Amino acid sequence: MSQDQKRDAIIEAALKRFAHFGVAKTTMSEIGADLAISKASLYYYFPDKINLYAAVLLHIIHEAEQAYGPLVDQEPDPFKAMDALLKHRTEFIIKYYNVISFIRSKHDIPEELKPVFGSVHASELSRMRKMVEKGVASGRFRVADVADMGSLLFECLEGLRMMYLEQASSFFPTPEQFHNLLKREQQLSQIFFNGLTV
Amino acid sequence: MSQDQKRDAIIEAALKRFAHFGVAKTTMSEIGADLAISKASLYYYFPDKINLYAAVLLHIIHEAEQAYGPLVDQEPDPFKAMDALLKHRTEFIIKYYNVISFIRSKHDIPEELKPVFGSVHASELSRMRKMVEKGVASGRFRVADVADMGSLLFECLEGLRMMYLEQASSFFPTPEQFHNLLKREQQLSQIFFNGLTV
Repeated sequence: MSQDQKRDAIIEAALKRFAHFGVAKTTMSEIGADLAISKASLYYYFPDKINLYAAVLLHIIHEAEQAYGPLVDQEPDPFKAMDALLKHRTEFIIKYYNVISFIRSKHDIPEELKPVFGSVHASELSRMRKMVEKGVASGRFRVADVADMGSLLFECLEGLRMMYLEQASSFFPTPEQFHNLLKREQQLSQIFFNGLTV
Repeated sequence: MSQDQKRDAIIEAALKRFAHFGVAKTTMSEIGADLAISKASLYYYFPDKINLYAAVLLHIIHEAEQAYGPLVDQEPDPFKAMDALLKHRTEFIIKYYNVISFIRSKHDIPEELKPVFGSVHASELSRMRKMVEKGVASGRFRVADVADMGSLLFECLEGLRMMYLEQASSFFPTPEQFHNLLKREQQLSQIFFNGLTV
């Protein structure tokens, strides 16, 4: 195995354990044992669990992007693109519930994870701008400042999510709560788009 | 002075100090000294600063309600009512900046203040529902479930505020940031209403 293959194998093994047992209940030793590699070798690739967790998050975000990114980007109808994005996003969050729920609030994001959250933020913001562009390109939306309107849409959806996370108080929302949030996100984007529609 | 008058005088004195010097820098002794009343008498009305702070918050919320509540409620045009509400709300927050900014995040609200925040929450929610009702009553909005649409509007505006509070990180936003937030709130509600407009 090359170094890259070995690194990928560690990420895959960690993802399996994280998804099945949760992040808190998984130890570095267990992941090493799954792959029959030495602790020294494991720690050569990932100095601690939080760094391994960051790599696992990047891996599943990349998987999600591959799975529905092109579908969303190639759909010219902003209503359909938005619907596809929100649905796939929710499915993805529920699928990796045990992995993602390790982070329960924006207030306790460890330093190691901030670049991961930063890149998710940037990619979502750029996608919301593209949604507005789709509507303008198809002649359905009348928008003075496309980038700014995309930001507003992003902020409204993010804000709505924060509202629902807050309601779930100190716990990550349940899959049912995520489905309720999805309904809200769909309602909001429909209203948003219908308000922009000529 | 009656007991009620004495209680009110304490609240007024505390509000002056809180607004001028901030809550953290104001002591119970200073408030007592301003009114030339004994510490025992002060503590008879308010067992500690946080209870006095809760009373001060209720007092300024009541003042704000008196100042712009009827104006907003009596305006039949939802666009104008919303604009008036958002503007007055922002002015009010900026006016009592030093008092309100004592609470910097939803995560550290002391138990004593939770009923105050609960009643503000309920009153805002009810006002958003009334906004949607205004539009329906005037024949401008077509809405299947008025109460639910009012809740969505409330959640979107609250979410937007949380986004801006979060961006201000651990500090309360500056008056300038509040003005930026106001612009966003106005944009969102315009889009929201235009999307509902027949």
